[in-house]
Order: sequence, then C-alpha cells, then structure tokens
Amino acid sequence: MGLARELAERIVALRYADLPPEAVHWSKIALLDTVGVMLAGAAEDAPRLVDAVLDEPAGGPALIFGSSRRTRALDAALVNATAAHALDFDNTASNMGGHVSATMVPALLAAGEAGQHTMQDLLAAHTAGYEAAGIGRALNPHHSDKGWHPTATLGVFAVTAACSHLLRLDVAQTERALALSTSLAAGTKANFGTMTKPLHAGQCARGGLFAAMLARKGFTANCAAFEHKQGFFRLFNEGGEPFSKASILRGWAAPFDIVSPGASYKLYPCCYSTHAAVQAALDLVRRHGTIDPSRVELVESFTSQRALAHTDRAQPTSGLEAKFSVQYCVSRALLNGKVVLDDFEADAYRDPVTQAMLLKVRAKPYTGPVFCADDPFDAEVKVTLRDGRVLHARVDRPLGRTAENPIGLEALEAKFIDCASRVLAPDAAAALCRKFRALEQLASVRELTSMCEPADAVGSRSR
Amino acid sequence: MGLARELAERIVALRYADLPPEAVHWSKIALLDTVGVMLAGAAEDAPRLVDAVLDEPAGGPALIFGSSRRTRALDAALVNATAAHALDFDNTASNMGGHVSATMVPALLAAGEAGQHTMQDLLAAHTAGYEAAGIGRALNPHHSDKGWHPTATLGVFAVTAACSHLLRLDVAQTERALALSTSLAAGTKANFGTMTKPLHAGQCARGGLFAAMLARKGFTANCAAFEHKQGFFRLFNEGGEPFSKASILRGWAAPFDIVSPGASYKLYPCCYSTHAAVQAALDLVRRHGTIDPSRVELVESFTSQRALAHTDRAQPTSGLEAKFSVQYCVSRALLNGKVVLDDFEADAYRDPVTQAMLLKVRAKPYTGPVFCADDPFDAEVKVTLRDGRVLHARVDRPLGRTAENPIGLEALEAKFIDCASRVLAPDAAAALCRKFRALEQLASVRELTSMCEPADAVGSRSR
Repeated sequence: MGLARELAERIVALRYADLPPEAVHWSKIALLDTVGVMLAGAAEDAPRLVDAVLDEPAGGPALIFGSSRRTRALDAALVNATAAHALDFDNTASNMGGHVSATMVPALLAAGEAGQHTMQDLLAAHTAGYEAAGIGRALNPHHSDKGWHPTATLGVFAVTAACSHLLRLDVAQTERALALSTSLAAGTKANFGTMTKPLHAGQCARGGLFAAMLARKGFTANCAAFEHKQGFFRLFNEGGEPFSKASILRGWAAPFDIVSPGASYKLYPCCYSTHAAVQAALDLVRRHGTIDPSRVELVESFTSQRALAHTDRAQPTSGLEAKFSVQYCVSRALLNGKVVLDDFEADAYRDPVTQAMLLKVRAKPYTGPVFCADDPFDAEVKVTLRDGRVLHARVDRPLGRTAENPIGLEALEAKFIDCASRVLAPDAAAALCRKFRALEQLASVRELTSMCEPADAVGSRSR
Repeated sequence: MGLARELAERIVALRYADLPPEAVHWSKIALLDTVGVMLAGAAEDAPRLVDAVLDEPAGGPALIFGSSRRTRALDAALVNATAAHALDFDNTASNMGGHVSATMVPALLAAGEAGQHTMQDLLAAHTAGYEAAGIGRALNPHHSDKGWHPTATLGVFAVTAACSHLLRLDVAQTERALALSTSLAAGTKANFGTMTKPLHAGQCARGGLFAAMLARKGFTANCAAFEHKQGFFRLFNEGGEPFSKASILRGWAAPFDIVSPGASYKLYPCCYSTHAAVQAALDLVRRHGTIDPSRVELVESFTSQRALAHTDRAQPTSGLEAKFSVQYCVSRALLNGKVVLDDFEADAYRDPVTQAMLLKVRAKPYTGPVFCADDPFDAEVKVTLRDGRVLHARVDRPLGRTAENPIGLEALEAKFIDCASRVLAPDAAAALCRKFRALEQLASVRELTSMCEPADAVGSRSR
C-alpha cells in the first residue's frame, strides 16, 4: 500500500471525540497564536499586494483578515496565509521543520466559513494536518538544508490533509488529494528575506485547499506519486536517505505530534536568536523593576557565537535591522519589561531613551555551560549599575522552544492582544482573545471570524 | 549581472516592430493551434472540474473557453491552460522540451482581454516568452529525465516573461517577476496519465501571470534566485551540468527560437509514436483513394521498436487505448483518409468497419534505413490487396517534427476546424479559423475571443 493510501486511511479515521484533551488544547493554542499573527501581518505589504492583485471583488463567504471584506475560500486562504507568515512570528512544527499552522489555519478558516463547519471540525482537521506534517521526518534535515522551504514544500501535505478532513473526503479522495498535492510542492530558500517568503505560505494554503476541493469532485492523480521513480521523494530528497514509509507512519497519533514533540512558539517579534537574551532581561525586570539608562554603567548580553553571527548589531538603522540586533532587543526589554510589535515599527528604533540604553549594551559570546549542544540557545544578561550593584540572569533556552518548556497561556494571550490590536480596537482584541478559551464550543467558524472584522475606520484598509 | 536581470533586459527590449516576418508567422501558428486544442480540450473533465471548483462566479473580462462566461484573468488562465493541455494535442518547444504555448497563450489571452491589448502586443509577448523558454537549454535533458515536468517547471518562466512583456513591466519589475516565479516552479512526471498533468499547465499559466501582476505592484523577490546556492538551478538540476548563463543567453533572438529550432506540432490526436505510420497510410490514400477492408489481404505497419513498446495494441478497449494503438490509427487513416478527434470519442473504436480493418493490421518493428538515429521516427506501411497488388509508403519523420519539415497551413487549419467544432458550430469554427490569417491586424484581443463563444445551446456547458 502506498504512502498516500496509508495516510488517507489514518486521516479519515481521526475523530474529534477521540482526541485527548492535550491535543485539543494545543490545537486551540495554535489557532489563537495563528489568528493573532495573521491579524498583525494583515497590514504588511506582502498580503496587501496579493489582495490587490486578486482585484475583482469576487465576493464570497471567507473573511480577508485585516478587513471586513469577504471573498472566495481559495483567495482568502492565499491572502490570509501570506499575512500569517509575513512577520515570521508564527509557530513552527518540529516534525516537519516548518511553519505549519500559518498555512493550515487560514485554509481551514476559509473553508470552514464556506462550508459552515463547527470549531470542533476545525480543531480535528488541524490535528490531522499536523500529524500528516510528519512526512518531514523522512526528509529532514537534508531536504531543508538543500534549500527547499519546508513550510511550503511539506506544508502543502499538512494543508491537504487538514482540508480533506474538514471537507469529509473519503479514503480514496483523500489519497488522490495528497497525490495531487505532490505536484503543488514549491518554494526555495533563495527567496527568503523577500515578500516571496510569506507568499510561499499563501500559495501552499491555497494549493492544499484546492487539492482537497478537486479530489472531492473526482479529479485524478497518481496514488503512487510519493514513491514513484519520478515522484516527490526522488525529486525533493535527492541525495538523502532512501524513502522510508515506516519513519513517517511510526507512532502516528501516539502521541499526537501536536502534543509531543509539539510546536515552537515565538513570544517576541524579533529574530529567534535574540529570544533567550530578551527572556533573561525580562527576568531581571521582573525581579528588579524596569531599568532607566541613567542608572546603568554597562549591560553585557551573552549569546552563542552562532546567534551573534546575525544578531550582533550595535546601531540598527531600520525597524528590520532592529529585529536582528540583540543589543536593541535587550535594551527594549530592560526599559519596558516587554518587547512588542511597536518597538519595530517605522522610526521606533530612534527613540532617544532606547538610544541612550543602546550605547551601554555590549554583545558578547556566551561561554558558560550549555544546556543542549545541538540547540545552543543559552543566554546571560549582566547589568552593572552606577551604584555598584550587579544584576544578573541566565536562561538555558527560550520559553516555548519545546513542549517540555511551554509558554504559559497568559503570555500567549498578551502576544495575541498585542498582535490583534494592530487591526482591532483594544477591547475588541481582548474580547476575541477570551473567545478562544472555549473555542471548541463555537457552533460555527463565523462566530469567531465575525469578531475579527475591524470597526469601520480601521476596516477600510486601502487596496 | 544575474540571469534574471540579463533576461529582463532582453525581454523589455523586444519590440513587435523589430520581429522578422517568420517570427510573427510562427507566433500566429502557435496561437491558431493553441486556441484550437484549447477549444477541443474545454469539454474534457480536467478543465471542467477546475472550473467547477472556482465556483463563485466572480465575473470579469476573460473568457472561459468552451463557454460564454467571463471571469478574472487569473482564473481564466488556470482553467483555459488546463483545457489547452488536456488532450496532449498542443505544440512542444524544443528549446525547453515542453508544451510552451499551452501555458503562454491562455495567460496572454486572459491578460490581454483584461488589459485591452492588441494582437500585435500578444504576438510580441508570445515571442518573448518563447525565447525565455531557452532556459531549458541549461538544464535538459537531465532536468526532464529526472522527472520534472518542463511544461510547468520551465514553462513558468516563459509565461512570466510573456506576461511581463504584455503588461509592460520595466526591467527591474521583470527581473523580480522572473525571480518570484522560481518559487512557483512545480510538477513531477509521476502524475502523468492523470488529470493532474494538464493541471500542471493550468497552474503554470496562472503562476506566471500572477508573478508578473505582483511584480508590477512592487512585490519583492531575490533577483539572484536562479543562481543562489539554495535556488532554482541547484534544486531543479541537481546532479546535472553546472549552471551556465551563457548557454541560455547565447544566440538570444538570433534567430528567434520560435523560428529555429521552432516548435513541434501534432496533426493527429493520438500518441506521437503513431504519427509517422499514420502519415504513410495517408500518403497511400492520397495516391490510391481510401481503402475498404473487403479489398485487403494484409496491412503491415513498421515503426521503431521504441515506439512499439507503447503503441503495439492490436485490440484497443477504450478511446484512450485507441490513441496508443498504431494498428487502430493506421486503420482509421486507410479507411477515412484522416485521423480526427471523433475517432477516439466514447465507443468510436467499436465501429464495425474499423474493427474489420483492425483484424488485418500487423504492427512490426521497422528495420530499414534510419533518417536520424537520435530521433528514430521512420515508418513504413505496406498494404497487400486481395487482387495481389501491394501498396507501399515510407515516411522518414512525421511532418512538423522540426521547423525544416513544417506542416502546411492547410493541414493546421483542418486540425483547427476539427478541434474548434467540438465547441462551435462548423461555420463559426471556419470563420474563426480565417480570422487567424490576419491576426496581427486585430486591434483588440476581444475581437478574437468574442468569436470563440459558442452559440447558446452549446455554450451552456454544465458545471
């Protein structure tokens, strides 16, 4: 039996009622986090330009996030997934080595609005898609190291699986949808650092939904397209390990991948290599209160040499550079006790108080004991005050790095509100956030998305 | 300077007024042939299902061929290019080793209707795209032999180039459109023999147009995406020759690729490996008139062993099998003096007279002198009549195989009318065909597409 068939049987068999509470919990968290970053990303250029190109207002059931317009499910999936990945602030699945929810959630919300599904339908479909992303175990790290962008090249199978589940395809249809989606896998890392990177997520979301919709109508594909001698594994894993179906199917749903190894979440809208140092600085603030530069003699930030290679930037000259300046991020954490989207907007990096702090920060290589040699995210922040006191904090890995070290719900909700407030009024963002707590009780996807529409003034986003 | 930039400069510099008459001639032929096969293919399942999935009638300027509905340019490009490749009856460009016009023409017609361009604009754009398809020289045959489907994986650059030219992008925009489209290259041969194969053409047409539209709005991509170490050439030509910009740019437009080496055209809607034998049989008919099975003792059809491997089928059991039966195709040629779409419809293969002829046909390996050892398409047909006479014809390669051996306009027009008559009334098909003769004089694309709309009864194609 081919991989597409094996996966299809397992996807179709998965039922919401059979999910353990942890799987439901982590799917809810994934939806909360993705809707947040999607709202924040909606104002970025990449999704706005995609939206502008799809310029005949088609009308339809599916919300274009950041606006109050609705369109066809396929178009909404494309625009919204581009938004969800635009800030690179979305979660990452370790089973596939890519941003898995940014592609699945927009496709599921769009299809869910079109088909009038419940939130339990969506949560089950997201869990199924996350499990199918385990295809990545058979290809990575080789696949990713070569330059394929797993978010798109493997994410398309997660989206196809999720949408096939949501749209209630049978086994044969799901099998063909997965086989078809091997022909939609695309996207290389050469386009990282440009708008085309988030577009990969958008194309992938549209593609996976399209594959499921076509297969449901009877569209055909070669069910052996994964293992075929001119098929997916040969072409997308050339030079890697031979194709191993067992490595993909082993441990299917036992436990669910969304529970363990789980997803990695970002709490701060800046380069992940700065996160442990930011967290150490925030620990200091929690213990000693925020710190004014006039009280400071010297700030030393220690992170790995690997991290410093792209985040040692004493004087950032743009918001984007500020995201890659550990000095800037630590300064903001010490000054404000938080690092948020506004810190990287427009000219925010020029703020005089932050500039005063920046002058006192030195970025240095971390040389202490290492928590995990393969994944060296240890950091230390040492603040020497003018009164002679030395404040000190150490972090062995950022919160959220693995499921054993999860970010608390409160912190994720604070991130959500920061994100959603870019589009929604603060009270609307808070109300929407609360809605996620009992997400599984919503009888329709529209109950959620209707709360994502901004009030008039904000909603008339220019196209 | 990177490849994207080099190509962009050449694409932008190309002007209709500078085209030699042969380039205009062959672009007109490509449009004639592609519109024909697109009309014929519009009734196939693959484009009909794609059309059905894009099911919110968006409205818009661009005709969905085979109907009289109009929609957005991107959707029309997707549906119509799937139609154009659905019968595998469309032309092939030797510079890229794929079906180049089936992807470009639908995208150009759709964008041309949306932007109200002239037919000269379209012909110049098609010529530019055809020239850009020369990217294939740097990758093939390795790229294709491995299992990539060049029609889509390389065709996307042809479509992007053509649409960038039509939409009058400047050099920097064209460069970014080409760089973006490296992230849209997709499609493997594992899905050959299924509806997903023509979908590759549809996705490619939509993708190339989308890339041009996005780049015109200011969308960004990495201009080094072709040569980047995690970019197109490394990933889509792994194990092949190192990237050579010179092999692509050498001889740009001198002569134009569409003139030499030119495109290969199909005259009969069956497997190309039967074409030389069909042509030999038709030569017999031209000399001796059609042949009734009652007069025949034996028919011997000689084609290469390679061709026989997939076309030796004494008793086809479906219309699709009949396309891969040299015995059937030769029988039809001898009986009717033509091989046309109707011969492969539904139960046509069961026709009693054809069945009587089939019993007398033997397919044998050709062992005579070979015209071109690398491209062995020689064929011989020998008919032994009951009266003892032996009729005999030999063909060294099918007409249209190369530009040195072109199919005459009359034969291509007959093919067009056969194709178009699947959707249009016969007189409408003939009138449309005549319109192509002075195609370059049409002031708008709509003048052509309005003639492609079927009369009411035929036009209400079910969705």
